[in-house]
Amino acid sequence: MDNASEIDDLKDIVNKLRKRLKDIREEADEAAAPKVSPLAPDNFPTLPDIDGVRFAAAAAGVKYQDRADVMIAEICEGSSIAGVFTKSSTRSAPVLDCQNKLASLASGTKTKGKFAFVVNSGNSNAFTGGAGFTSVHAISSAVADTFDVTADQVFTSSTGVIGEPLPHDRILAVLGDLKAGLAPNTIEDAAAAIMTTDTFPKGSTKTVEIDGTSLKISGIAKGSGMIAPDMATMLVYIFTDANISQATLQKIISGQNKTSFNAITVDGDTSTSDTVLVAATRRAEMAEIKSNRSSQGRAFASALGEVMQDLAHQVVKDGEGATKFVEVRVTGATTVTNAKKVALATANSPLVKTAIAGEDPNWGRVVMAVGKSGAVADRDKLTIKFGDITVAENGWVSPGYTEDDGAKYMRKQDLLVHIDLGLGNATSTVWTCDLTHQYITINADYRS
Amino acid sequence: MDNASEIDDLKDIVNKLRKRLKDIREEADEAAAPKVSPLAPDNFPTLPDIDGVRFAAAAAGVKYQDRADVMIAEICEGSSIAGVFTKSSTRSAPVLDCQNKLASLASGTKTKGKFAFVVNSGNSNAFTGGAGFTSVHAISSAVADTFDVTADQVFTSSTGVIGEPLPHDRILAVLGDLKAGLAPNTIEDAAAAIMTTDTFPKGSTKTVEIDGTSLKISGIAKGSGMIAPDMATMLVYIFTDANISQATLQKIISGQNKTSFNAITVDGDTSTSDTVLVAATRRAEMAEIKSNRSSQGRAFASALGEVMQDLAHQVVKDGEGATKFVEVRVTGATTVTNAKKVALATANSPLVKTAIAGEDPNWGRVVMAVGKSGAVADRDKLTIKFGDITVAENGWVSPGYTEDDGAKYMRKQDLLVHIDLGLGNATSTVWTCDLTHQYITINADYRS
Repeated sequence: MDNASEIDDLKDIVNKLRKRLKDIREEADEAAAPKVSPLAPDNFPTLPDIDGVRFAAAAAGVKYQDRADVMIAEICEGSSIAGVFTKSSTRSAPVLDCQNKLASLASGTKTKGKFAFVVNSGNSNAFTGGAGFTSVHAISSAVADTFDVTADQVFTSSTGVIGEPLPHDRILAVLGDLKAGLAPNTIEDAAAAIMTTDTFPKGSTKTVEIDGTSLKISGIAKGSGMIAPDMATMLVYIFTDANISQATLQKIISGQNKTSFNAITVDGDTSTSDTVLVAATRRAEMAEIKSNRSSQGRAFASALGEVMQDLAHQVVKDGEGATKFVEVRVTGATTVTNAKKVALATANSPLVKTAIAGEDPNWGRVVMAVGKSGAVADRDKLTIKFGDITVAENGWVSPGYTEDDGAKYMRKQDLLVHIDLGLGNATSTVWTCDLTHQYITINADYRS
Repeated sequence: MDNASEIDDLKDIVNKLRKRLKDIREEADEAAAPKVSPLAPDNFPTLPDIDGVRFAAAAAGVKYQDRADVMIAEICEGSSIAGVFTKSSTRSAPVLDCQNKLASLASGTKTKGKFAFVVNSGNSNAFTGGAGFTSVHAISSAVADTFDVTADQVFTSSTGVIGEPLPHDRILAVLGDLKAGLAPNTIEDAAAAIMTTDTFPKGSTKTVEIDGTSLKISGIAKGSGMIAPDMATMLVYIFTDANISQATLQKIISGQNKTSFNAITVDGDTSTSDTVLVAATRRAEMAEIKSNRSSQGRAFASALGEVMQDLAHQVVKDGEGATKFVEVRVTGATTVTNAKKVALATANSPLVKTAIAGEDPNWGRVVMAVGKSGAVADRDKLTIKFGDITVAENGWVSPGYTEDDGAKYMRKQDLLVHIDLGLGNATSTVWTCDLTHQYITINADYRS
C-alpha cells in the first residue's frame, strides 16, 4: 500500500472515530438534560382573561439568572379567596402566613380592598427560622405599599431550595417593575416565573355555563419533584370570575383537592411549601353561589375539579425524569381507605416504577405492592389488568395472557394499571410517572 | 509536512481516539454492572461448623445456569426451630407452608426425627395459584423421601421472579446430588446458592460463653432489592448448637428481629417471600435455656441479635446499586412509634437517598422527610447532624456549619444522619443505602 492510500485510510478511520465520539457525546448530553418532558403538552393553552385579575412577572435574580423568577397576581376588591396547603409539620413560613391570613378571612373578618398573590422561585424560604417570617412580612408590607393592598391580603409563596435565607431585598427591588407590567393577559409569564426544575409551564382552563352566564376558570401550576399526596411540591393558582362565597369556595376546593392534587405522586416525598390558592373575583353577572350542594355549586365544583385534575396531571407529566404517565386505578376494595392504600403503595413502589421505566410488564411487582400496602386483600380474588389486558386473576397469571401482549402495551406512553381487589365496591385512582435514571441525575445534583 | 510525518500524526490521533473510546466503553461497562458492591466486606467470614447441621448446594438450573441455585441444610433430631416471615397479604406458597409447619411445632406437636431447610433461587413461587402449593408439597415429599425426614419438618423457601410456575422437577432431580454432597463445613456454598441480584454471599458468626460452655451461632442471608421492614426480600438461615426450647427461641428471634431485619430498608418495597429461620441443635453441653428473661436467655439473645444485625447490615450493603451505607438515628422523640416514623420517612425518601448518592449535604431534604413523616415534630426544636457535624438546630442552619464541612463528610462511605426531635426520650435506628443510577439499571431490566 502506498503512502497516499494509507493516509486516506487513516483519515477515514479518524473521521469515523470522531463521528462515533460525537454521537456518544450527544447521547450523553441528551440523556443528561432533556429540555422538555416527553409527556409535555404541545403548547401552553390559551387562558382567557379573568375579569378583575392582572398579572406581572420580573427577573429578581433570587437564584436563577436571566429569567423571570417573581410573579404577582393582583386581584380585585370583593373577591373570595380559598386555599389548601401542605400538612408537613415543617412547612414553610409563607405557608404558615397564608394559613393565618385565610383563617382570618374564614372567621368573617371584613376584607379591605384588593388582594395579591406574590410568588418567587429559586428559594423556598422553608426552615429559615425567624428570618423566614421576617422575609414574608417584608414582602407583604412592601407589596401592600406598592400595590395599595392591605398587608393582610397579600399571600406569598416561595419554592426552591430549603434552608437558605430568602434574599427578599431582591424581590422588593423589582416591585416597581412588576407594578408597571401589570396586565390581564400575561398569566403565561406568571406560570413560567414560578418554575424550578419544571420543564414546561402549566396552565389549564374551563368555562362553565351557570344560569345562562358563562363563567371562566384559569389556573396555573408548578411542580415536578417532591410530589406526593398532602401534597405535591406544588404551587397552584386558580382564578375565576364566579360569584361565589368564600366559605363555599373553600368547601369546593377542599373537596376537589382529594381527587386532583392529593391523588398524584411522583416520589412519595411531600414538600414543605405546597400551596393551592383560588381567587373568585365575583365579577360574573350571576346570583352568588352560596352552597356547594346547590346545582350551581355542583356545576362550578365539577368545572373547577376538571381544571385542578388537568393541572395535577401536568405536574405528574413533568415529574422529574418521567417518560410514562401512569394511572393506577383500584376497584373492588372494601373501603376507600383500602383502595387508596393499594393505589399509593403501587404508585410509590420504586420496583413498580422502575419496571414501567424499563417497559417491563412485571405484574409480579404489582402483586408485591398490593401485598405490602396493608390493605385488606385476598390473593385469589385479585385481578390485575394493564389497560384492557387481563394479566393476572384467581391467584395466578391469566390463561390468555402472553408476555408479548404485555410488553407491547408497556411501550405506550400513557399507561393504566388496573387492580381489582374483588372484595367490595370502593375505588381510588392515583396518577404517577415512572422512575428513571434522569430522576437520579436531577436529584443527586440539584444544588450544584 | 512530508507523508511519513503526516502518517505518524494521524496514527497518533487514531491511537488517542481509540484509547478514548476504550475508556468510555470501560466506564459504561463498569457503570452498568459493578461486579461486587463497593460496600461488600473483604471476605466471607469463617463460620464454625454447628454440631448437628450439614449443608449441600447444587445447580438445578431453575433459572440461573452454570451456578448452584439450590441448597439444603439437614438439621439433627431434637432441634428447636423458630422463624419470622413477611407480613405481605400476597405472601408466597413456601412462606405460608413454613408458617403452618411452625405453628404446628409451636402448638406442641411432637417432632419426629430430623429437619431440613431447602431453598432455591431464581423463582419465588409467589402468586402462582394452586400450582405454588403443589410445588411446595412436591419438594417437601421428595426431600422427606431422600433425606429420611418427615415432610412436616421440611421448610422450603424460594426467591426470584414472582408469578412464574416453579419448575420443581429440576429441584427434585438434584436431590440425590445434594444428599451425596452433605457436609458440615459448606455453609458458604449454601450462602452462594441462594443469591439472586446479590453481589456477594452473606455470612456472620458469633460465639457466646454461657455457664462455661462456648455456644456457636452461624448465619447466612440473601437479599438486595425489595428490602423494607416487614421485612426485606430476604432469606436468612441461622444455626446454633444452643440448648434452647422452641418457645424461647421464637420469643428471642421475634424480639431481635425488630432491631435487625425490621430496621433496614433499601427501597421501601416489601417482599412476598421474606423468611428468617433459626435452628438450634441443642447439642451444646448446657442446661436448656427455658426463658428469654433468664441471664442465659439474655446472653444468647444478645449474641443472636448481633449476628442478625450484622446480616441485616450486609443486606443493606448489597442494596441494589448502593454506594453508601447510611445509619438514620432518631432520638428525642415522644414515642418509639414517632421515632420510627421519622427514621423510615428519612431512610425511604428518594430525595434524601439521591442527595446522599450525589454526596450532597442537602439537609433541607431531611427537614422535608421529618415534616412528611406524620410524627410529632417541632421545627424549632429539631437538631440535624451529619456524623458529629451539627447542621441545623433551632429552626435553621447551625451557625458553625459550613457547606464545605458537610460536603467533605458526605464523601465518606459510611454515613450517620442523626435527627434529634428535642421532644422526649424515645429513639429508633434504621439502616439504609443511597439511591443510584445502578438501582434503576438493575430494576428496569431485571427480567430480560
